[in-house]
Amino acid sequence: MSINHPYLLFLGDAHDALAAKTAIGVWQWRPEACVGQLRLPGCVPSVDLPELSVAEGWARGARTLLVGVVNRGGVFAQDWIDTMVAALEAGMDVASGLHARLGDIPAVAEAARRGGRTLHDVRHPEGSFPIGNGEPRSGRRLLTVGTDCSVGKMYTTLCLHRALEARGVESHFRATGQTGIFIEGSGVAVDAIVSDFMSGAIEQLCPAAPEDHWDLIEGQGSLFHPSYAGVSLGLLHGAQPDTLVLCHEPTRTHMRGLPGRPLPDLASCLEANLAAARVVSPAPRFAGVSINTRDLGPKEAQALLGRTEAELGLPCIDPARGGVERILDAML
Amino acid sequence: MSINHPYLLFLGDAHDALAAKTAIGVWQWRPEACVGQLRLPGCVPSVDLPELSVAEGWARGARTLLVGVVNRGGVFAQDWIDTMVAALEAGMDVASGLHARLGDIPAVAEAARRGGRTLHDVRHPEGSFPIGNGEPRSGRRLLTVGTDCSVGKMYTTLCLHRALEARGVESHFRATGQTGIFIEGSGVAVDAIVSDFMSGAIEQLCPAAPEDHWDLIEGQGSLFHPSYAGVSLGLLHGAQPDTLVLCHEPTRTHMRGLPGRPLPDLASCLEANLAAARVVSPAPRFAGVSINTRDLGPKEAQALLGRTEAELGLPCIDPARGGVERILDAML
Repeated sequence: MSINHPYLLFLGDAHDALAAKTAIGVWQWRPEACVGQLRLPGCVPSVDLPELSVAEGWARGARTLLVGVVNRGGVFAQDWIDTMVAALEAGMDVASGLHARLGDIPAVAEAARRGGRTLHDVRHPEGSFPIGNGEPRSGRRLLTVGTDCSVGKMYTTLCLHRALEARGVESHFRATGQTGIFIEGSGVAVDAIVSDFMSGAIEQLCPAAPEDHWDLIEGQGSLFHPSYAGVSLGLLHGAQPDTLVLCHEPTRTHMRGLPGRPLPDLASCLEANLAAARVVSPAPRFAGVSINTRDLGPKEAQALLGRTEAELGLPCIDPARGGVERILDAML
Repeated sequence: MSINHPYLLFLGDAHDALAAKTAIGVWQWRPEACVGQLRLPGCVPSVDLPELSVAEGWARGARTLLVGVVNRGGVFAQDWIDTMVAALEAGMDVASGLHARLGDIPAVAEAARRGGRTLHDVRHPEGSFPIGNGEPRSGRRLLTVGTDCSVGKMYTTLCLHRALEARGVESHFRATGQTGIFIEGSGVAVDAIVSDFMSGAIEQLCPAAPEDHWDLIEGQGSLFHPSYAGVSLGLLHGAQPDTLVLCHEPTRTHMRGLPGRPLPDLASCLEANLAAARVVSPAPRFAGVSINTRDLGPKEAQALLGRTEAELGLPCIDPARGGVERILDAML
C-alpha cells in the first residue's frame, strides 16, 4: 500500500483529541505532508494547519483526504459521507484506518469508481502476502518491542529514524500500524492480516538491503499481552531484527485493557524477546530501553532512567527528554 | 461454524492420497459420519465406503457434500462445479477447506441462494471474533504443541479424546484446522483469522467449563517455525492450557518447508511453551511427549521412546504403537 501525499486531514466532528489521534499524529510527524485540516461543525480538537474546504484543499495540492478520526458507533454520518464524496469528485483519494470499509459505503464506492480514485482501507489490507520463510537477509534491522501496547514504540522508532537521518545513515521507517502507515505513506497493518501471513507480510515490508542500511520497524503489542502476543511474535519473526529497543511506560498499573493484569518486569521482557528473536537472527541484542516519562517530574524521571540503566546494563532514555543519541551510539 | 452430518465425501479427481488427505482423515476418524464417497473419473485414492452419486448420497441421509480434496492450480473444473450444484439442488450444504471461496463460484453461489443452503468455507471464517482477554476460566484444558508443523498434533489430540471418553471423562475435542473441523463438525481455522482476533477466537472455542471437564485443543505449527510461530502463540494464549503435550516427528531433517533449518531440541521446546503458557496459566505442565515413530522399526522406536523419556522425565509414547494411556494417567 502506498498513499499519495499531501493530505487534507479530516477531523470530522471529533469530541476530543483521542478521537482524532491519528490525524494529530500525522500532523505532528509529517506537517510538511499536510496542506490543511477539514473540521465539521462541533469538532473540538484542532491542529496548527489552515482550515480548508475540499476545494481549497485540492487547490493547495492535497491528493488524499485522510480520515484521521474515529466514528462513533461504527455508523457514518451523512456529512462524513458528503465530505468523502466531494473529495473523490475533486480528484483526491480517500484513506481511512477505521474498522468499517470505505468501499462498503455505496455513495463513496460509486464516486471512487466513477472518478477512478483509490480508497485506502488500512485495516483491510488487499492483495496477497507470502508465507514467511525466515531466510537470513542482508541489511541491519531494528525492531521496537514493548512491555505493553501503546507505550511509545511508534514514537521511539520515528525518533530513531530522524536521528539516523541527521547522521546521514541510510534508513527506512517501516510502519506496521495505521498512524505509522499514514505518516510514512506506506506500510502494513499487521494486526489486520490473516494470521498465516503475518511474518511473510513483514518480511516483504523490510526486504534484504545493503549491509549498512537500517530498517527501523515499528513494533506492536507485547509478548506478554494475552490479546496480541501472537501478533507481536509474528511481527518479530518477520522483522528478523539484529537490534531491538524495549519501550515502556512506567506509570501504567496494568496491561492495557486488562485491569488486574500486572506488567512484566523489564528483564523478563528483554529475555523473552531475545529468545524469540534467536529463531530468525543469529545474535540479536538490545541497544537500549526507551521509557515514556511524560507523567513523571524531571527529577523523578532522571532517577528512574538512571536506576533502570544500572539494573539492566543498557542505555535507558526518554526520547522526549534527552533524545535517542545514546541508543544510536549503541546501534552503530 | 457448525457443519451438518453426515457427509458425502467428495474426492474429485485426486491423483494421490495426499491430494485427498482431508477426505481420508475424516473417513478415518469419523467413518460413522460419512455415508459414502463420490469420485470423478480419474480419481486414484479411495476410502472404504460405498461409491454414491449425489442422489444416492441424499437418499442415504447425507446432509453435507464435503470437498475433501485439493484442486489443482486454484481453478475449479466444470465437473466439480456440476457436482456441487447437484448436491445443493438435492438439499445438501457444501463444505470446503480450499483457499478459493465456494461463494465466488457463480453457479454454486446461485444454487445455494436458490435452495437456502449453507456454504461452509472453513478457510474463510465468517462472523466476528472477540479480542482475547486472558481472563482465567474454569475447566481443564490440554493443548498439543509441536517441534514443527504436521508432526501429529491433531492425531494425538483425537487419540487423547477417544481415550478420555473410554474412561468416562467429560471432554471435547476443539478443532483448529480444516481436517479437525470436518471431523468434529465445528471449530475454527486459526490460521485463517485476522491476526488481532486469534487468541479471542480460541477463547471463544474453549470457554469456561465445569472444573472436571476437559477441552482437548488441537495445536498448530510450532513456536520455532518462523512462518507460523505467531499463530502458535496466539493459539496457546487463547487456549490457556493447564496441561500440554509435545508432539514430534523424529525422522524429519529440517523444519517443514524450510530446507536447511534444523528442528529445535525437545527440551528447548518444552521450556519455550511453558514460558509462553505462564502468561495465561498459573502452573502449566507437560503431561507427556507424543512421538510419531511410523518411519522407524519397532525396536528402534522403543529405544527412542525410552531414551527420550529418560532425558526429559516425561511419559514418551507413540499413540499408534502403545496408545496414550500413560499420558492420560499423567493428566488425571
